[in-house]
Amino acid sequence: MSRNVTILGAGLVGSLLAIILRKKGYEVSVYERRTDMRKASISAGRSINLAMSARGWKALDLAGLRQEMEPLAIPMYGRYLHQPDGQTAFQPYSRNNEAIYSVSRGELNRKLMTLAEEHGAKIHFEHRCAHVDVATNTLRFNHNGEEKTVHADLLFGADGAFSALRNSYSHMDRVNSSQHYLEYGYKELAILPGNNGEWMMEKEALHIWPRGKYMMIALPNTDGTFTCTMFMPFEGEVSFEKLKTEADVHQLFDTQFADAKALMPGLIEDFFTNPTSSLITTHIFPWHYKDKSALIGDAAHAIVPFYGQGMNAGFEDCTVLASLMETYGDDWATILKEYERKRKPNGDAVANLALNNFTEMRDKVADPKFLERKKIEKELGNRYPDRFISVYEMVSFSHIPYNTAIQCIQAQDKLLEQIMKQGDYFVNIENSSFCESLGQWITAYHAEVQQLDFGNEAR
Amino acid sequence: MSRNVTILGAGLVGSLLAIILRKKGYEVSVYERRTDMRKASISAGRSINLAMSARGWKALDLAGLRQEMEPLAIPMYGRYLHQPDGQTAFQPYSRNNEAIYSVSRGELNRKLMTLAEEHGAKIHFEHRCAHVDVATNTLRFNHNGEEKTVHADLLFGADGAFSALRNSYSHMDRVNSSQHYLEYGYKELAILPGNNGEWMMEKEALHIWPRGKYMMIALPNTDGTFTCTMFMPFEGEVSFEKLKTEADVHQLFDTQFADAKALMPGLIEDFFTNPTSSLITTHIFPWHYKDKSALIGDAAHAIVPFYGQGMNAGFEDCTVLASLMETYGDDWATILKEYERKRKPNGDAVANLALNNFTEMRDKVADPKFLERKKIEKELGNRYPDRFISVYEMVSFSHIPYNTAIQCIQAQDKLLEQIMKQGDYFVNIENSSFCESLGQWITAYHAEVQQLDFGNEAR
Repeated sequence: MSRNVTILGAGLVGSLLAIILRKKGYEVSVYERRTDMRKASISAGRSINLAMSARGWKALDLAGLRQEMEPLAIPMYGRYLHQPDGQTAFQPYSRNNEAIYSVSRGELNRKLMTLAEEHGAKIHFEHRCAHVDVATNTLRFNHNGEEKTVHADLLFGADGAFSALRNSYSHMDRVNSSQHYLEYGYKELAILPGNNGEWMMEKEALHIWPRGKYMMIALPNTDGTFTCTMFMPFEGEVSFEKLKTEADVHQLFDTQFADAKALMPGLIEDFFTNPTSSLITTHIFPWHYKDKSALIGDAAHAIVPFYGQGMNAGFEDCTVLASLMETYGDDWATILKEYERKRKPNGDAVANLALNNFTEMRDKVADPKFLERKKIEKELGNRYPDRFISVYEMVSFSHIPYNTAIQCIQAQDKLLEQIMKQGDYFVNIENSSFCESLGQWITAYHAEVQQLDFGNEAR
Repeated sequence: MSRNVTILGAGLVGSLLAIILRKKGYEVSVYERRTDMRKASISAGRSINLAMSARGWKALDLAGLRQEMEPLAIPMYGRYLHQPDGQTAFQPYSRNNEAIYSVSRGELNRKLMTLAEEHGAKIHFEHRCAHVDVATNTLRFNHNGEEKTVHADLLFGADGAFSALRNSYSHMDRVNSSQHYLEYGYKELAILPGNNGEWMMEKEALHIWPRGKYMMIALPNTDGTFTCTMFMPFEGEVSFEKLKTEADVHQLFDTQFADAKALMPGLIEDFFTNPTSSLITTHIFPWHYKDKSALIGDAAHAIVPFYGQGMNAGFEDCTVLASLMETYGDDWATILKEYERKRKPNGDAVANLALNNFTEMRDKVADPKFLERKKIEKELGNRYPDRFISVYEMVSFSHIPYNTAIQCIQAQDKLLEQIMKQGDYFVNIENSSFCESLGQWITAYHAEVQQLDFGNEAR
């Protein structure tokens, strides 16, 4: 029976897991590569704001952090589109006025660390894990130039996309793993507040400038700024490689992002100071080793940020673990095995959802046919609340397994194609014979997806 | 201009590459993890005999080793099938009496090492590469417990599936990589010679015992023995996991491999002494770093052994590099870039060909329809030698790029399906109207594949 738990990484997932395990009475030691972010200023330009949705909030409830975080979270009720000619449009995310929430990664992480410590977890900063001997759970750290060896009873790798534990797993016999970089990089820029500290664009929305092969997004911060992120190919016709001079950047922003540029006095400095970062997707199997260790969060499934689900998925790993601890007590051999069985398919699914959503955001959101479909989906959800829920809503506003959501895509595509083939939905819907057919199609769709695992959620 | 070349690994590909580079006048240092196999006995049970085919021989020509190797290579003119009831059948590989050749890996490796040394390469044994700093080409070795640092002008990683250079590449930004293990393991067994040292089965064939979900193969050795390899799932109904006792092994061999068992007096000892090994496929991109380093052979593309192409593909990497040196002289930035451009698609293709061939060998070869198709392919090759060559022949008996061979599969499947749909080919072919249609189909097939890159080979 393991009572001492070691966690690699004091990021969002590692800190949350520490709180959960302390609440269950385990001794918890966390080892973090970086210095204590509460004492130092966080490095700018590589954050990508968080979009907290249902799965994230559920985990914060578990930690008892919802009340404290709510005032710091800005609801975003939909996508706010910016066309090259300055035209804009708003697309709500849900039929029920539900929102995803813009949250500062640094703020949330600091709060989670402090709460973990208040619950009695010990966080060791500036400990870089150099090697894990998986069979014996022996960890070698580098701490300010000195080597330090630690033995773990039970070990969690919550140490991100470049996890030391993941790396050690991948050197074992019969461990499958992959890492794939997108051919796109990203760079953070800033939209500043007005003279009175006010937000200069719609505050409660996720702003998108979809440009086909590239895009910019912006998320609101509590201080009146927006964090903008430019996603663009590293190489090619319009690419980071091609933006060499100030004139190049001016030219691009003047023609494609003129409305944003007017609010970005620091554009040129930001552009040439902030790094161009890469975007990785990783897969690995297995996720655990006997009753000794497991991967969690990005360490198990690093994904691209386009569905805003990275943190939410990692937090859901934690809530699933917590519920398995309820069921299986201290039987970690079973807990870790069940955790892997339940979560691995969902880790794969959310990785694919995130990759798919990139095409949607940078390209399809500006397509009138796509906008029409979104409107119909919303109406179907209102008309048949117990039989139709859009994939976006499943992912962001429910706890339906990611793997179920992804399996519904094809059936929903078929359904919506069938509906839209008939012409204007909002005209047709006044017609009783169309309504009858629609009812039959929805029934067929519902029957098709009903055998999937929807968890405890309505479908 | 790099004149000093460092090679990681003195295996087949590393040793061959050393010879080629010495012939071009480079100083060559090779670092090998293991002890000198010419002084120690090679560890048994993990060799998988080599099947040398056209690409391998071409490289041996380049090294000047063909004459020396030919007497040690046993031609295998086809597959020799063993059914559970003892029935056998022979399937020739080619229409021209071409063969693949059973070669001892150890023998070939020893000869290549000696030749490399005779040409002036220096091989450092018992040097385990612990780390490569890719940007500076600084290598850290562990040599009998001591650390040793080496700087390379130009570096090749020929250090196999678990390459240190590959590992260092995979930790760099924007390097894609994957490793995937088959759910099958393998174990080596032996068929012994008769009382007078004679081969106890047909010598000049590759023997297969196809059993659907598992299989055994046997390749002839010069000493009258056959090396048998059992491929079987690690877990499941019939699996290594299930073969726990001597009775289990007797039972399996009595019912499924009775003819072979009679020739395997050491079966039980071999089975429980020899390891059960795993089978990995790896992909990585890029294969090179500027003008400083590149991966070659298994380090770039570790594949499963079912097409007998692992060594052949690695040797072809060497012949392509040699021809690029002819074209570009000492311009290694261009050579390595071109090497990657030409070889990466072929590395991916041969990995897939090898995976596909496993299903063929363990399952389809016993299927009458498959055998019929093989006969028709042979006949088509004779009838239309300038327009049809089977994929197997492309891979094993030509230098047509692997990537071209794999792209022909679909077109050949379509063609053969069309032909076989008409009934018995060997009856139909007597009929002039069928012959006319056949000519049209072949012309259509030929037109479809003609735009592919066949290298300098006839198609």
